[in-house]
Amino acid sequence: MRAEMLNSILNELNGTSADIEASGVISTDGLMMASQLPAGLDEDRVGAMSAAMLSLGDRTASELGRGDLDQVLVKGKDGYVLMVYAGNEAVVTVLAKSHAKLGLIFLDVKRAAEQLSKLL
Amino acid sequence: MRAEMLNSILNELNGTSADIEASGVISTDGLMMASQLPAGLDEDRVGAMSAAMLSLGDRTASELGRGDLDQVLVKGKDGYVLMVYAGNEAVVTVLAKSHAKLGLIFLDVKRAAEQLSKLL
Repeated sequence: MRAEMLNSILNELNGTSADIEASGVISTDGLMMASQLPAGLDEDRVGAMSAAMLSLGDRTASELGRGDLDQVLVKGKDGYVLMVYAGNEAVVTVLAKSHAKLGLIFLDVKRAAEQLSKLL
Repeated sequence: MRAEMLNSILNELNGTSADIEASGVISTDGLMMASQLPAGLDEDRVGAMSAAMLSLGDRTASELGRGDLDQVLVKGKDGYVLMVYAGNEAVVTVLAKSHAKLGLIFLDVKRAAEQLSKLL
């Protein structure tokens, strides 16, 4: 029941923009709670990389005086990975295309993270 | 001589916006080449965290099909850390305040990275 609601929020998130290719909700220790991933993208891999980036992001923010971590963005030549905390125990990870409008993606992911955090 | 030119580019970068608090050019193995840091911010710490974030960012971009890494952004409650490649051997790391206008910071840092990459 809760899994269905998580999936429904992710599904809606993916539908807000054609530039969002995949999304998932992941516990801060790297376990997938729900995901909407295209074929060929491994759940475990997305979970593991998200948890590792967040853990190092936490430490970077703290060591360099940036306070508690909100989000981490990785930009590659072929697109973005955006990780945003949904509450304290989970993170939303989104994969977006390289020509995505970042301002819109930030807004949509932040909204989804707020909805998700209420369910977790 | 070259160190002076690197410092001059960083100095100019910090001057483009009051929201940029610190900047440095760091080799991809984490050694500082030049920096304009406020008192209290340790060069070695900035270098080490930048190199670690880039290394994991490289791996995340590659594992999740985002191509070669361009940049990593860490957003904390009290501000941003932005790391952008300057050529293949070095990275520019910038610390910015929490209310900074990200679009402008991205643009200014990208320009500085291009100038710096010509000197390295």
